[in-house]
Amino acid sequence: MSGTVHPGHDPAHDPIPGWGPTDRTGLTPRAGGITAVRGFRAAGITSGVKASGRPDLALVAAEVPAGVAVVTTTNLVKASSCTWSERAAADGTARAVVINSGNANVCTPHGEEHTEAMATAVAQHLGAGDQDAAGDHPPGAAAGDTGDGVAPTDVLVMSTGVIGVPLPVDRITGAVPQLVAALAPDGGPAAAEAMLTTDTRTKQVAVEVEDGNGGRCTVAGMAKGVGMIEPAMATLLVVLTTDAPLSGPVCRQLLRGAVRPTFNRISVDGDGSTSDSVALLASGTAPEPPGLEVLGRALHAVCADLAHQVVADGEGATRIAAVTVRGAATEAEAERLARAVATSLLVRAAIHGADPNWGRILMAMGTAGVAFDPRRVSVTCGGITVCRFGVAASFDRGQVAVAMDRDVVALGVDVGSGDATATMLTCDLTPEYVRFNAEYTT
Amino acid sequence: MSGTVHPGHDPAHDPIPGWGPTDRTGLTPRAGGITAVRGFRAAGITSGVKASGRPDLALVAAEVPAGVAVVTTTNLVKASSCTWSERAAADGTARAVVINSGNANVCTPHGEEHTEAMATAVAQHLGAGDQDAAGDHPPGAAAGDTGDGVAPTDVLVMSTGVIGVPLPVDRITGAVPQLVAALAPDGGPAAAEAMLTTDTRTKQVAVEVEDGNGGRCTVAGMAKGVGMIEPAMATLLVVLTTDAPLSGPVCRQLLRGAVRPTFNRISVDGDGSTSDSVALLASGTAPEPPGLEVLGRALHAVCADLAHQVVADGEGATRIAAVTVRGAATEAEAERLARAVATSLLVRAAIHGADPNWGRILMAMGTAGVAFDPRRVSVTCGGITVCRFGVAASFDRGQVAVAMDRDVVALGVDVGSGDATATMLTCDLTPEYVRFNAEYTT
Repeated sequence: MSGTVHPGHDPAHDPIPGWGPTDRTGLTPRAGGITAVRGFRAAGITSGVKASGRPDLALVAAEVPAGVAVVTTTNLVKASSCTWSERAAADGTARAVVINSGNANVCTPHGEEHTEAMATAVAQHLGAGDQDAAGDHPPGAAAGDTGDGVAPTDVLVMSTGVIGVPLPVDRITGAVPQLVAALAPDGGPAAAEAMLTTDTRTKQVAVEVEDGNGGRCTVAGMAKGVGMIEPAMATLLVVLTTDAPLSGPVCRQLLRGAVRPTFNRISVDGDGSTSDSVALLASGTAPEPPGLEVLGRALHAVCADLAHQVVADGEGATRIAAVTVRGAATEAEAERLARAVATSLLVRAAIHGADPNWGRILMAMGTAGVAFDPRRVSVTCGGITVCRFGVAASFDRGQVAVAMDRDVVALGVDVGSGDATATMLTCDLTPEYVRFNAEYTT
Repeated sequence: MSGTVHPGHDPAHDPIPGWGPTDRTGLTPRAGGITAVRGFRAAGITSGVKASGRPDLALVAAEVPAGVAVVTTTNLVKASSCTWSERAAADGTARAVVINSGNANVCTPHGEEHTEAMATAVAQHLGAGDQDAAGDHPPGAAAGDTGDGVAPTDVLVMSTGVIGVPLPVDRITGAVPQLVAALAPDGGPAAAEAMLTTDTRTKQVAVEVEDGNGGRCTVAGMAKGVGMIEPAMATLLVVLTTDAPLSGPVCRQLLRGAVRPTFNRISVDGDGSTSDSVALLASGTAPEPPGLEVLGRALHAVCADLAHQVVADGEGATRIAAVTVRGAATEAEAERLARAVATSLLVRAAIHGADPNWGRILMAMGTAGVAFDPRRVSVTCGGITVCRFGVAASFDRGQVAVAMDRDVVALGVDVGSGDATATMLTCDLTPEYVRFNAEYTT
C-alpha cells in the first residue's frame, strides 16, 4: 500500500467520455490528496480495531471552523455515524472528520454512544492538540482561532467495516491523543490509507482551480470502497476539502450538484450500504477564491475522479464500463436506463467476456420502467454500432470483441426519444467477485 | 436428456416451507407431464432452428376448443410471440400452443410476420391432422369437434432462444406437418424437451386433484428456463393444462392467482426476459370436475413445483434459498423485502459460501423502500437465529454453516411490524454463473 495517488489519474484530462465536467478549463492536478488544500491537516494511525494491525483510524482537521455539508446513505438501516454526522453538519460548520475502518458500528447494541464517544474524544484532544501544535501551522492558516475548544458536534464521524460486531470503542478513544498528535499538513495519504478496508489501493485526488480572473483555490478528496461491494463492509466514504470560503448552505448546494452525476452514478453490485457518507469541508483560507461556477466544476471533476477510482478498484473487477444513454426524453430517464443496463448481471458478465451481447442491453432497458420505442434504439459497443433501430446491425463480432477488451469499455445507447443524456460507470462481473464474497467469513 | 419427470419432485409433499399451498389435501402426483391431462396431445421434434440438431419445436394441442388465459412479460421490449398470444387468448378459447426453442424472434426485422406464419401453419395442419388422426383420440375426447378447421388465432406462440438473430421461419413452417403428425396422448415429455435451451433437464409436473365430493380432474404443466438466466435467451415459458371445464375469464382469474405467489416470486439474476409467457389451457373433458377452490390449490401447487424446478436448474446454481419474510405489515411489503434479499448479489454469494452473513440481509432490506424498524428485526439462517432485534444473536458460526450447506437453505426474517408473510425462491450466485454468461458468444 503506497499511500500515494494512484498513478495515471489526471482529473483534468479524464479519459472517460461523458464522465465528469466537459469543460475542464483552469483545472490543474496536484499531488498530496486532501492535505493539498491549505488550512487542513490529516493523520492516519493504527488503533487496533483491525486484527491485521494495519492503519484503521484517520482524522482530517480544519485549522479554523469550516463550512460543511454531508450526504449520507438512503438505506433505511443507517449507521449511527451517518445520523451523527448529519446532526453535526446541520449548523453548517465543522472542524474535523474522524474515520475508523475495520468495524462499521452498524446493528450493534451501543452504536450511538460509541459514535458520540469518538466525536467527544476527538473534540477534547483536538482543542488541546491544536494549541500545542500551533508552531506547525502552515503559512496562512489562522492558528489563533483554534484554541477556543472544539465541541463534539463539530466533529463528523464515519465508520466502515464489518456489520453487527460491537465496536471496540476503547481502542479508538485510547488512540485519539496519538491521532491528534500525528496531524500533519502532509498527512493526506496516511489518512487515505487508514480509511481502507478491502480496497487494494488508496483513492485520492487534488486539483488547483483558477477562474481566469485571478481567483484560485484547491479542491481535494479521498475515498474508500464502493456500494456494498466489500463483504459485510459498510462502505463508500468520501471526504472532500477546499480552501474556498463556503457557508454550510453553499457547501450543501455544491455537494449535491457534484454527487448526483458522480457517486450516485456508479454501481458495482447494486447494493446500497448502510454507511455511505460524503462530506465536504471548506476552510475559507484561500486568499482570493474563484467564482462558484468554476468551483462547482472543480468539485464535479474531483468527485468524478474519485468515483472512477472506486469503480476501478471494484472487487474482482478487470475492467470498467461507461454506459452512456443519449437521446432520452429527460436526464432522469437517461439515468434510469443507464442504471438498468449498468446493474444487469448479464450485461456485466458480457462486459467481462468482451461480448457485444446487445440483446441483454435492450432487455435490461426494457425493465427500467421508462417508456421508449425499441424500434428507435441503437447500441454501440466499444464505439462500433451493433444494433440499429432495434435490430442487429452488420458488424464483425471479432472486431467488436477486440474493441471491448480494454480497461475502459464504452457502451452507448441512443434511445431516439429526445436530447437528454447520462453516463453510469460500472465494472465487469467476474468469478473472482463471487468467490471473494462467498468465502469471506466462513 | 431423459425427457422424464425430474425424479424426487413430489408436489403433494413439497419440501420447501412456505412455498406452494399449505393445504395439499386431495392432491396426488401423476407421471406424464402435460399429457397426463385427458383431452391434450403433445409432440416435440427437430426442425433445424438449433444448430445442435436437438429437438426445438413443440406443440400442445387440445382435442376440443379449450378455455385459455396467458400471462406474459412486463418487459417493454416484448417478443412478438407474447403480443400474438395475448391477442389469440383474448376471446377466452384456444386450441394449441406452438413453441420453438433456439431463437427468441425478438429484435428481428420480420418478427411479427414470422410469429403469425407459425400460428397459421399449425392451424392449417392441425385441423387436417386432427381428422386424419381421429382414431388416436383417447377415450372421452370429443373428436368430432375438431374437424371444423382451426383459425390461426386459436394458436398461441412461444419462442425462446437468442435475441436479435432473424428466425429461420421456413424451417419451422416446413416441419409443422411432421410436428402435427407426431402429436400423441403421451407426448408431454417430448414437448417438454423440445422447449429447452440451456436448461439441463426438463421441468414437468402433474397432479390429480379430488375435492372429496367425487369431483376430480388433472392439472399439469411444463416449463423451461428462468428470468434472463440463459445467455441472450429469452426465457421463462410455461404451458399448463387441465381437463376441468373453465371459461377464459375463470382461466385468467385462476392463472393470475397461481402465478403471483410462484413464478412472480422466483429470481435467478433479477433480469426480466422479453418473452416470459405462462399459458393455461382447460379442455373441459373431465367427466366430473372438482370445485374451483380445490382446483385453484392444485394449480398453485403445480406452478410452485415448476417454479421450484426452474430455480433448481438455475445457471451455475448449487443450492436453492427460500427467503421467507414474516411479520410484515402487508403481503406486498413482505414480498418487496423478500425480493430485495433474494436479488442481492452479496446475499446470494453468501448463500453459495453457506455464510450466515446477516448484515447483508439487513442491508438488502434497507434498500427495499419499505418502512420498518431495524431494532425489531430478527433473522434465521438454516433455522438458527443469527440476529435478534437488530443485533447479533449468540450463535455457533460453524453450526450455522453446516445448517446452510444444504440443497435447500431457508433464510427467515421477522420484521416485527405485522402478520403478513411472503416467500421468494432464489439460487446461489456462483463463479460458474459468471463464467458461463461471460463466455457464451465470443
